[in-house]
Amino acid sequence: MKPARFDVTGIGNAIVDVIAHASDAFLVDQQLTKGAMRLIDAQEARSLYEKMAQAVEISGGSAGNTMAGLASLGGKGAYVGKVAADQLGDVFDHDIRAAGVHFETTKLEGGAPTARCLILVTPDAQRTMNTFLGACVELGPEDIDAGIIADSQVVYLEGYLYDPPRAKEAFKKAAKLAHDAGRKVALSLSDPFCVDRHRDEFMSLVSEHVDILFANQSEITSLYKANSFDEAVSRTKGLVETAALTQSEEGSLIIHKGEVVRIAAEKVKQVVDTTGAGDLYAAGFLYGYTRGLGPEASGRIGAIAAAEVIGHVGARPEVPLLGLLP
Amino acid sequence: MKPARFDVTGIGNAIVDVIAHASDAFLVDQQLTKGAMRLIDAQEARSLYEKMAQAVEISGGSAGNTMAGLASLGGKGAYVGKVAADQLGDVFDHDIRAAGVHFETTKLEGGAPTARCLILVTPDAQRTMNTFLGACVELGPEDIDAGIIADSQVVYLEGYLYDPPRAKEAFKKAAKLAHDAGRKVALSLSDPFCVDRHRDEFMSLVSEHVDILFANQSEITSLYKANSFDEAVSRTKGLVETAALTQSEEGSLIIHKGEVVRIAAEKVKQVVDTTGAGDLYAAGFLYGYTRGLGPEASGRIGAIAAAEVIGHVGARPEVPLLGLLP
Repeated sequence: MKPARFDVTGIGNAIVDVIAHASDAFLVDQQLTKGAMRLIDAQEARSLYEKMAQAVEISGGSAGNTMAGLASLGGKGAYVGKVAADQLGDVFDHDIRAAGVHFETTKLEGGAPTARCLILVTPDAQRTMNTFLGACVELGPEDIDAGIIADSQVVYLEGYLYDPPRAKEAFKKAAKLAHDAGRKVALSLSDPFCVDRHRDEFMSLVSEHVDILFANQSEITSLYKANSFDEAVSRTKGLVETAALTQSEEGSLIIHKGEVVRIAAEKVKQVVDTTGAGDLYAAGFLYGYTRGLGPEASGRIGAIAAAEVIGHVGARPEVPLLGLLP
Repeated sequence: MKPARFDVTGIGNAIVDVIAHASDAFLVDQQLTKGAMRLIDAQEARSLYEKMAQAVEISGGSAGNTMAGLASLGGKGAYVGKVAADQLGDVFDHDIRAAGVHFETTKLEGGAPTARCLILVTPDAQRTMNTFLGACVELGPEDIDAGIIADSQVVYLEGYLYDPPRAKEAFKKAAKLAHDAGRKVALSLSDPFCVDRHRDEFMSLVSEHVDILFANQSEITSLYKANSFDEAVSRTKGLVETAALTQSEEGSLIIHKGEVVRIAAEKVKQVVDTTGAGDLYAAGFLYGYTRGLGPEASGRIGAIAAAEVIGHVGARPEVPLLGLLP
């Protein structure tokens, strides 16, 4: 097979993050579940925004963050996601290209505005996310370029794509194209509540179509409705070729062809905002994976990338990640 | 005179900052003067933005930052500035209100977009600013509410208002209304090149209408085309009742009724981004001034507020400033 033009093509909801500090009491008042992502409509987005503290706008979106991280490591990434032709869409478009990621998805004209995620960061550095999908609901199979997918070693899909209806079709088309071209399919489970919304579909997807699975502890236990993480780990062994299961400050477990490797978390001076930790872990892992590194080395790079992004506000690296590798 | 509803009303160009890291070589390539603010048109804004690294969007604008700082100290502030009815206008509007500042200037419909300032932060933490004024050029005397000005102890004007033509009229109207109501007028000289553009007008303005002058070393020497800071200081003594002259890490000098007080700079662990240092100094000083504190105590608060804002990216405080006071 000829060398691929891209290491990874990421497909996801293209979102601008609106990040503000919030107290635990604020979460309680607004009846929000700490650490989770929930979907909100335009009206709720407006009313929650009105109550939030002053914020910072930074490009986000799970797979978008992963592609920015991959590029920051020196990897070649492409991204597919739908923004509107508006100011926030310009921000997203600028930032992902400026990060060095190939991005050419057609912008939505005259429809919903660019998606935003209202992120509340509590004093414990946890993030609670409220996503208004906006233009993302218009991402469809027509946005998937067969040439780009076939020319990527890995197509990386975020589980969040199962929320907007047509994105799921785009997702399936991309996975099929990748396999037809002899490429790998990676999936991030995204969020335990997202898993809850789409459990059956995710289960058949993972068992039939996914080569590399990313999940954190609560997502993977939610997938199987398992009673413990250990149970989830043992069920994952038989299910996919490669899985990277993250456990916050406890590090991560990599399951590769039935073998389990434990990776320690990278030390962080101060955890400021955990937004993007999983996305950047995936970036580092895929960077190693697409260079033929083993699970241990790939997991190590994932841990380093995740450590950088939780040390500051925002879900994309602030310094070139390549410089942080040993 | 009855107690004022507001401590300070700030009037300025309402701007969203677009902040990115840049190398010194990038400034040279783009022929930019480090540390200065220059005005750019829509086309140049687009072409410079395309070349910039991934960025963060944060509400800014010199007087807007000052008002956010004042509110963060517990002061009562109002702000007048023109944004468009667009996404970045919503961001500005949200953030200044969320900071606790009264803001009700009518948004521009169907005209230029909300102003943005493309800020390049070099590794030495200096900021170089490129402002597309957008909707700001439509700020005019009709946006000045006589009731609010009369009900503010101080009206604070940024020198940058002299760049858009009608804002200057708004500026003059506000200054006259303030004095007619027995209130004080404060002016920030904003930028040495801005002083250069409007030197004669600033000179007559300062000598005839300004009670409290804010300037940094290069702005005040530019005002008089003085050969030294000392010369500028001695000329300032006779010119205004109160002046606060900042000198970066060397601290500041306060001239009050002919007496000179020196204020040391506040120690900063790491200077990350100097954007907003002068704005926050003014916030702290005015907070003290409107509480009847003397020049030394007011300058001290200014130094503390400036130190907070240069410790992170963005020109508005990230923590409640009141908690930083001794």
